Amino acid sequence: MPPGDTLPRYVCDACGEIHYQNPKLVVGAIPEHEGRILLCRRAIEPRYGYWTLPAGFMENDETAAEGALRETLEEAGARIELAGPFSMISVPAVNQIHVFYRARLLDLAFNPGEESLEVALVEEDKLPWKDIAFRTVAVTLRHWFADRARGEFGFHAEDLPLR
Amino acid sequence: MPPGDTLPRYVCDACGEIHYQNPKLVVGAIPEHEGRILLCRRAIEPRYGYWTLPAGFMENDETAAEGALRETLEEAGARIELAGPFSMISVPAVNQIHVFYRARLLDLAFNPGEESLEVALVEEDKLPWKDIAFRTVAVTLRHWFADRARGEFGFHAEDLPLR
Repeated sequence: MPPGDTLPRYVCDACGEIHYQNPKLVVGAIPEHEGRILLCRRAIEPRYGYWTLPAGFMENDETAAEGALRETLEEAGARIELAGPFSMISVPAVNQIHVFYRARLLDLAFNPGEESLEVALVEEDKLPWKDIAFRTVAVTLRHWFADRARGEFGFHAEDLPLR
Repeated sequence: MPPGDTLPRYVCDACGEIHYQNPKLVVGAIPEHEGRILLCRRAIEPRYGYWTLPAGFMENDETAAEGALRETLEEAGARIELAGPFSMISVPAVNQIHVFYRARLLDLAFNPGEESLEVALVEEDKLPWKDIAFRTVAVTLRHWFADRARGEFGFHAEDLPLR
């Protein structure tokens, strides 16, 4: 435990550098086009073959919004315009926070990137609820359709308890 | 650049471990009591002697809300009840995202922790605007007082551009 700190840390025996282990931010989008949502089927582990919203780890030197745009372009080849943040979900089991932005597809020229098997625009009644890759994505999509049904989009912050 | 990645990473020459460098989350609270806001005067660098809201790096194994409660207890000795998230501000210049929660002080038995010189409940017209430690805190406080003035608290997401 470094002086003045409250937790043990990884410290390099050789140079003394402290390696802090902090939660990582995953940023993504809910790209919408005429009521349908853009989903990607994963070509990578974890959850190969399952459906997800475009999302990934936020990188240094970018804002959360820029990260969501970048991941949507990388995974779905899709250009979007962001509205505000829609959900923020803590996942302490894996030390992550997932933030999803509302978004509008700018055109229909999307196509799967290296990390996706396919990309599709999906209606609410066709949503593959049993094959959604991550709980944060399912929670976000449920809030999105519920908010659309009541005609007003809010901001949803919650925690996924430890399994 | 590891296979399948899009950016160069720090890779250990000895064991091959990849050390990803991602933005860190800073979580904090806006503790309110009868219209006054709890502020801490920093006893540590950076910004020694300047005023801030209680906040700090989110740790592994906690949710964002738990982190905000913990930091408020550590820095201000204050017990609070959280309302929802109030602001989320990307600070790409330092690779951080700051998230502040609205909060209510549960009692007045607060006192400065090791990282604070003093803790005070401050009225809007006494706020030390010129001596606020961080831009994210100033932005958050400005939104808070503006929202209070119009009688409705929203959620505020924004970016602080690179200086």
